[in-house]
Amino acid sequence: MNFNLQEAIEVLERTPGTLEQFLFGLSIDWLQCDEGEGTWNPMEVMAHLIEGEKYNWIPRLEHVLEVGESSPFPEFDRFSHLHKETETSLEKMFAQFKMLRTENLQRLKKLVQPSHLDLTGSHPAFGVVRIRELISTWVVHDLTHISQIVRVMAERYRNDVGPWQAYLGILK
Amino acid sequence: MNFNLQEAIEVLERTPGTLEQFLFGLSIDWLQCDEGEGTWNPMEVMAHLIEGEKYNWIPRLEHVLEVGESSPFPEFDRFSHLHKETETSLEKMFAQFKMLRTENLQRLKKLVQPSHLDLTGSHPAFGVVRIRELISTWVVHDLTHISQIVRVMAERYRNDVGPWQAYLGILK
Repeated sequence: MNFNLQEAIEVLERTPGTLEQFLFGLSIDWLQCDEGEGTWNPMEVMAHLIEGEKYNWIPRLEHVLEVGESSPFPEFDRFSHLHKETETSLEKMFAQFKMLRTENLQRLKKLVQPSHLDLTGSHPAFGVVRIRELISTWVVHDLTHISQIVRVMAERYRNDVGPWQAYLGILK
Repeated sequence: MNFNLQEAIEVLERTPGTLEQFLFGLSIDWLQCDEGEGTWNPMEVMAHLIEGEKYNWIPRLEHVLEVGESSPFPEFDRFSHLHKETETSLEKMFAQFKMLRTENLQRLKKLVQPSHLDLTGSHPAFGVVRIRELISTWVVHDLTHISQIVRVMAERYRNDVGPWQAYLGILK
């Protein structure tokens, strides 16, 4: 096990700035490319990350701290951002993601002491989970979606790289 | 085919800042984690990206523009950074990567006109390649290594996420 609360926070606090550096100002063809029917483009991934800040990580953490395993925490709809109007600009999305993440990390630091990390709650699908697992998952969930955005963009040039395709791990 | 020189440059110019936002100031355990024997940690990936700026992309481009297919461009040793002393700090690595990338993009813009994109050169392993394929590959190579760094860091928490492991694409 490698989890360390301070190190987890280091990654969580970098995600909004990293994605802003990477995506802000890119041409629309990069921002709206995807991997085909039913897959997400970089702007949809951003919308999903914002939904997670609102309805997933901190609400679940608070639920576990309040009621433990006595009732499962609420479902999080991983597709909720697709049912909402997303007319908002990337600039507004980054402002919102940064604000929510900053607030959520302040709440995390206030709510969770080292003695809480092994407290248990109940996941609606797979049962008993620990606070340390929830926070680790928040970190890896960020990494999953950074990786997804990068992969989706690489896919756009799959045929353009010609014979180099075989050398580029991300296209496998 | 989706390649567009201006859009390719948009990605290439963002890579150093993106990785700096993501990695700078992280604990050493994040910077030196890897996926096991023979795999690279984030600092080794940075060293490899720097080697590419020095010996791969622009030297190959210049070679193709100068001699076409008449002689293959030089081999690039993908493991060269592992044979060198890398006592340098991450701060120095970012300064170097940013400087080299900025210079190389200035050279790219100066050297390559739209009429050059279909000029051909000879790759030492797989033969005829076009300028547009070389530049597309530079872009996807950046994306491959951003993705690699993110994946290596996610791997560090593979066991820490507990039952969420099945939900996190990056761990598959």
